[in-house]
Amino acid sequence: MKVTVDTEMSRSGILTLLTDFGLSDPYVGVMKGTIAQVNRSLTVIDLTHQIPPQNIHLARFALMTAIPYFPAGTVHVAVVDPGVGSDRRPVAVAIGTDLAAPMGFLVGPDNGLFSGVLSQYPILAAVELTNSQYWRTANPSSTFHGRDIFAPVGAHLASGVPLEELGTAIGTNSLVMLDPLTPQRTQHSLVGCIQAVDHFGNLITNIPGSEVNGQTWYAVVKDATVPGRKTYSDSAPGELLAFVGSHSWVEIAVNQGHAQSVLNLGIGDAVQVILQND
Amino acid sequence: MKVTVDTEMSRSGILTLLTDFGLSDPYVGVMKGTIAQVNRSLTVIDLTHQIPPQNIHLARFALMTAIPYFPAGTVHVAVVDPGVGSDRRPVAVAIGTDLAAPMGFLVGPDNGLFSGVLSQYPILAAVELTNSQYWRTANPSSTFHGRDIFAPVGAHLASGVPLEELGTAIGTNSLVMLDPLTPQRTQHSLVGCIQAVDHFGNLITNIPGSEVNGQTWYAVVKDATVPGRKTYSDSAPGELLAFVGSHSWVEIAVNQGHAQSVLNLGIGDAVQVILQND
Amino acid sequence: MKVTVDTEMSRSGILTLLTDFGLSDPYVGVMKGTIAQVNRSLTVIDLTHQIPPQNIHLARFALMTAIPYFPAGTVHVAVVDPGVGSDRRPVAVAIGTDLAAPMGFLVGPDNGLFSGVLSQYPILAAVELTNSQYWRTANPSSTFHGRDIFAPVGAHLASGVPLEELGTAIGTNSLVMLDPLTPQRTQHSLVGCIQAVDHFGNLITNIPGSEVNGQTWYAVVKDATVPGRKTYSDSAPGELLAFVGSHSWVEIAVNQGHAQSVLNLGIGDAVQVILQND
Repeated sequence: MKVTVDTEMSRSGILTLLTDFGLSDPYVGVMKGTIAQVNRSLTVIDLTHQIPPQNIHLARFALMTAIPYFPAGTVHVAVVDPGVGSDRRPVAVAIGTDLAAPMGFLVGPDNGLFSGVLSQYPILAAVELTNSQYWRTANPSSTFHGRDIFAPVGAHLASGVPLEELGTAIGTNSLVMLDPLTPQRTQHSLVGCIQAVDHFGNLITNIPGSEVNGQTWYAVVKDATVPGRKTYSDSAPGELLAFVGSHSWVEIAVNQGHAQSVLNLGIGDAVQVILQND
Repeated sequence: MKVTVDTEMSRSGILTLLTDFGLSDPYVGVMKGTIAQVNRSLTVIDLTHQIPPQNIHLARFALMTAIPYFPAGTVHVAVVDPGVGSDRRPVAVAIGTDLAAPMGFLVGPDNGLFSGVLSQYPILAAVELTNSQYWRTANPSSTFHGRDIFAPVGAHLASGVPLEELGTAIGTNSLVMLDPLTPQRTQHSLVGCIQAVDHFGNLITNIPGSEVNGQTWYAVVKDATVPGRKTYSDSAPGELLAFVGSHSWVEIAVNQGHAQSVLNLGIGDAVQVILQND
Repeated sequence: MKVTVDTEMSRSGILTLLTDFGLSDPYVGVMKGTIAQVNRSLTVIDLTHQIPPQNIHLARFALMTAIPYFPAGTVHVAVVDPGVGSDRRPVAVAIGTDLAAPMGFLVGPDNGLFSGVLSQYPILAAVELTNSQYWRTANPSSTFHGRDIFAPVGAHLASGVPLEELGTAIGTNSLVMLDPLTPQRTQHSLVGCIQAVDHFGNLITNIPGSEVNGQTWYAVVKDATVPGRKTYSDSAPGELLAFVGSHSWVEIAVNQGHAQSVLNLGIGDAVQVILQND
């Protein structure tokens, strides 16, 4: 095997942020201040800061659906961290297939919030963030590692500091993984659940779109039968439809309406998909 | 007529975004990822992402009040798109008076959300976005053209790709226009309506400030008579006042209060302005 | 004393924004448009735009907790401005200990919103913004000085225009200061109050962490006794704890919960801290 090294050349200069900090306090602005202290030429992009507090499952979903759309070599800093100040590990991970040009880097607490991404991409290397030289201070706050560890480490990594400089190498199999929420399948149906609800009230299931693409199908939720469609305008306004959403999961919506309110369903509720082909 | 051409020189390097996607999902972040895939040196500025879902009328209002404050040659990408995936046209439009130096560019669905801007500025040229070379993928999602068509096309346009490269020229008179909401006028009064309510609860009418500037006037809403003032501090805290707002429309507010709650009025409700001069 | 001058060399190229404008209207985007008209190479960072309308006390708190984390020479534009259009002064202030390299610059209305920062850092110089050459227009709106005065002045200042160019020098003791909310102390206790509530429902008091660091202590709110801890994970999920928060104030929280809802307390309510040492 060829020896590859993580070098500055493999960075996009972009750093994304995802947190549960909300936008009413200046916490996110403060993280950007600490990033700018390291390197003001980085491009910082918000994924979202409205993950419900401490909800690592929804953080995992959001990261999984967003990271594929960023340039290779982007650093993704995510802080949804109910265990801040405990002995949960702060980590950085390189993902992709070539350490000389990683698909991306993940920086945050090792609590499973990256496990969706880590099931999509190979892990190239992982470190526990033990080198306080790259922190804002060697005496970080016990409640705001986003400001004192993750943001500055992310900024150094995005600026070209090699991953291995940031701390101690750890086994790539040792990273915390959440239950992947795999749907159950029979020959002609899948039984899954709602894994997220978006701003439009669309119910996003854990059933991959690849299971229904090119087929005739419908979804069953509660006592409603919802036809499988291609897009909103295949239904009348106000009508329920199921389709493969833009993140490639089967999703249930109301055309120009709010499916969550109409169906009174939420995360974890069951969804069945029936395939009518053959 | 002199032949003018749209060239890279006429770009500001700025791209604005306006959507109804909200900030709780990473949809906006994903659009910025696709923009960075095209050109990471662009400056991306959010106008707002909290247009009420599918409300092209409020998108029209927000765009009309914001675009005049941006540098010439800025690209404005707007995605409030109830018809996504249907046969509504995706378009790009150059506005201003000189194709060698346009005032700006508009990119989004041709559903009327640009019609406020298009009534303020001359249209230089318009194209339907048919050239998939500038899309993120030639097989776009049927529900997220913001990510797959509008953001990458906007990024290419802001990077200097000529407008005419993006697709097929279309008639500038063919763009969808919404009803302009013109107030009715008599010799000494105007009857209009509330076209928007802002974060402070201010009621923004469709009556142009130019109708009242330099005059003595008052507004009538419901059974309340509201004096025309210059600014908040001309009234006592808690008092109703009418004034010409910062976007040049007559607006009704409560000094340090929330007019919408006090008056229990909303979009579409009638407002009368009485001129007392002469 | 050595003569020092404010020069372009002392700028970080960063401009922060804090307002009560919310994110549903394009007001913040418009301020960024006017900044870009002055200098599109500035890095603009949002602190927050969700200060409750006209609440200069919470603006003061947010600025005080955020500004220390930004690079020296950053310009902070803050607009929470119930007196807009009245005779309250628009000001710019340099803070720090060396006018050749200020810690930062403050731009906004002189209504006390900067008084938390001004009690942390020495004032180097202050001017009233009277030079309309640096405004967007010599005839500013009487209700949106953020767009027409503060944003463009901030952009010029961040671009290297000397502070004294922006207007008339004013006495550094003449700036409006709000009541500093100092807690009362006895030998073994402090009586303070809640000065802010954050997105997580944490109750942030006005009692400095330096009063309790290294000691055994607890807090009393209403009839609840809350143990002093180091971090969340020193308590069980759902349990109340008190700790020194990341902004160095004593703060009361529920581990993985929402203290404001649990205790039904808000801004201004009393908090007592009891020191158990000696």
